[in-house]
Amino acid sequence: MTLVSDPRLAQLPTPALILDEARMLRNIGRLARRIEAKGVSLRPHLKTAKSVDIAKLLLTGGRGPATVSTLGEAEAFAAAGVLDMIYAVGVAPRKLDRIAAIRARGCDLAVLVDSAAQAHAVAEASTRHGGAIPALIEIDCDGHRSGLKPTDPAVVEIGTILNRGDAELRGVLTHAGGSYGVVGAEAHARFAESERAAAVAGAEALRAAGLPCPVVSIGSSPTAHAVDGLDGVTEVRAGVYVFFDLVQAGLGVCAVENIALSVLTTVIGHQREKGWAIVDAGWMALSQDRGTRGQTLDQGYGLVCDGLGKPYPDLIVASTNQEHGIVAPRPGSDASVPDWPVGTLLRVLPNHACSVAAQFDHYEVVPSEPDAPLKVWPRVSGW
Amino acid sequence: MTLVSDPRLAQLPTPALILDEARMLRNIGRLARRIEAKGVSLRPHLKTAKSVDIAKLLLTGGRGPATVSTLGEAEAFAAAGVLDMIYAVGVAPRKLDRIAAIRARGCDLAVLVDSAAQAHAVAEASTRHGGAIPALIEIDCDGHRSGLKPTDPAVVEIGTILNRGDAELRGVLTHAGGSYGVVGAEAHARFAESERAAAVAGAEALRAAGLPCPVVSIGSSPTAHAVDGLDGVTEVRAGVYVFFDLVQAGLGVCAVENIALSVLTTVIGHQREKGWAIVDAGWMALSQDRGTRGQTLDQGYGLVCDGLGKPYPDLIVASTNQEHGIVAPRPGSDASVPDWPVGTLLRVLPNHACSVAAQFDHYEVVPSEPDAPLKVWPRVSGW
Repeated sequence: MTLVSDPRLAQLPTPALILDEARMLRNIGRLARRIEAKGVSLRPHLKTAKSVDIAKLLLTGGRGPATVSTLGEAEAFAAAGVLDMIYAVGVAPRKLDRIAAIRARGCDLAVLVDSAAQAHAVAEASTRHGGAIPALIEIDCDGHRSGLKPTDPAVVEIGTILNRGDAELRGVLTHAGGSYGVVGAEAHARFAESERAAAVAGAEALRAAGLPCPVVSIGSSPTAHAVDGLDGVTEVRAGVYVFFDLVQAGLGVCAVENIALSVLTTVIGHQREKGWAIVDAGWMALSQDRGTRGQTLDQGYGLVCDGLGKPYPDLIVASTNQEHGIVAPRPGSDASVPDWPVGTLLRVLPNHACSVAAQFDHYEVVPSEPDAPLKVWPRVSGW
Repeated sequence: MTLVSDPRLAQLPTPALILDEARMLRNIGRLARRIEAKGVSLRPHLKTAKSVDIAKLLLTGGRGPATVSTLGEAEAFAAAGVLDMIYAVGVAPRKLDRIAAIRARGCDLAVLVDSAAQAHAVAEASTRHGGAIPALIEIDCDGHRSGLKPTDPAVVEIGTILNRGDAELRGVLTHAGGSYGVVGAEAHARFAESERAAAVAGAEALRAAGLPCPVVSIGSSPTAHAVDGLDGVTEVRAGVYVFFDLVQAGLGVCAVENIALSVLTTVIGHQREKGWAIVDAGWMALSQDRGTRGQTLDQGYGLVCDGLGKPYPDLIVASTNQEHGIVAPRPGSDASVPDWPVGTLLRVLPNHACSVAAQFDHYEVVPSEPDAPLKVWPRVSGW
């Protein structure tokens, strides 16, 4: 048997988080061109990459627009020169002082609300800090999580609170989390249309009440890659497409060959009677995200590849402990685990790029040029 | 309704990782006394706490013996003065130089092997570095993961390799991961006896071949709290008992009231038609560990408590996204989610302390003295 590996990876401690720069750049370009052609703005979600280096490649001029999921991200990206962000998690009143401090440094950070209590808190903080903290109203397009139905009278009630005094009503925002429950571009296009219709209905309710609604923001990685008509929408958000992952491949949004992220791991043993190999990537490295569990092809804790990143189609990480992974054939397959020598390097493609990347504090970036050295890109963590 | 919270927590950003020092000290004392009374050594596993501050409370004189799961832990704890550690994950040959470097700084770090290939690599590295890297042979007592059956001729083969030249055969080690599949002290005592019997059989096989076996190491949190006879065993290992968690409570190893770790979170909204509250602890804070899924009481992504840590017996985090948690009544219960104002602080008890703690870079430690300020204890991360 051959021990194949990229020589640049051979000296890394394992487990390590490997990023294929060429694949990432293709993924970034694919969605950027798609959304640009539709004449609306793309507002990438930085919660997947959490990297200043990647934000510079992802955002127009490295400045925005962008979406974030924590104030830790907002602070790091604001410090790196990102000037336009939405913090797309319903805001807790106690966070508003910290948000005002980020805004005071010149970054247009907007927040998200779906209750009058939050709107009052935002209005009060805007007055107290002597400048608006712009807020969007979260619209619920699919019953998945947070937000208000566009016909809920609370939309106009909140809009009215945010249109007084020092506050600023920035617009509406929705996210079709339910798009992860259906497969294929046609089904995702239907969720995209639900996003569009709900967000536009929310915007129209505000405008009918004489309120402004400059921003109409929709998006998820599945819907952004399938959306057709965008009438009334001003921007599209998406995050995980930067790397893609097995969940997205299972949804038909990408091919396995587009996945830019993998975990480098070392074979540390075998249980030959059981047909297992043991590797040094457990859930601490792979996370416990089992996002493909409900999909047609359950990938366990990840799909196993050789050291160069070529998948073994039927070998998965079947179970994990903290620092142990058990590699086994996919149930029902007649594949078997090769007799890899102890020390063999493998790579594991992630179920969910956001979860797996979050287990590491940096990326080992494999540049497009075959002879260029690896680059180290740190990740932002915490809140 | 009353908004109860420890005033010391009220100013923390959320989500935050809260450690109740008094509960932790009781948990530490309980097992220390139990194992000491049996006349063997306790070798705590530091992979749960990953904290130098906690290691000092946990280890005899802060120096050891201890168990670690990564070389990152080994380096951090060696630098903090821990002098005796076992790296209890089968060793990859490429890691031996780094291990030798830790040993060269005066820490007796031993490794684990279950193949002749690893033993040869350890022997070769011992020669190359001019000093033994002591190794234990991993014994499989329950078919759970790694290791050799004690009757496997490879045990003596490996022992022989490790007893030559510059190498050092330190002993045998086993772990009954299968003990997590059974409930109650009686069942755990049976797994403890399997651990003991398998480890001692491995040791006897080595000794019968004229090989030394000074260390006979067994343990898991469930078996360590149930083990009765320890004939032939020299040390017991356990890790998660320092904090305990809902999995251990479900196994009957502790009570919910013993759990020392919780995630502080803020209510950011409601979906009243669905009976949900939305909180700012998603899987990034709670991890995706669903360790109670197969237990009698499925705790979702964690059991919800008020701000003082008192559980709502039937409210769980029913689902999570990256930075959103959905609080809902346990299926089948007639509980309902209170109409908590946005901004209310709650605490969530973890399914699995190791997984949840790993999502944070430090503990916010609530001291035993009611008026003492919070302490910040950093965590070790990475590999």
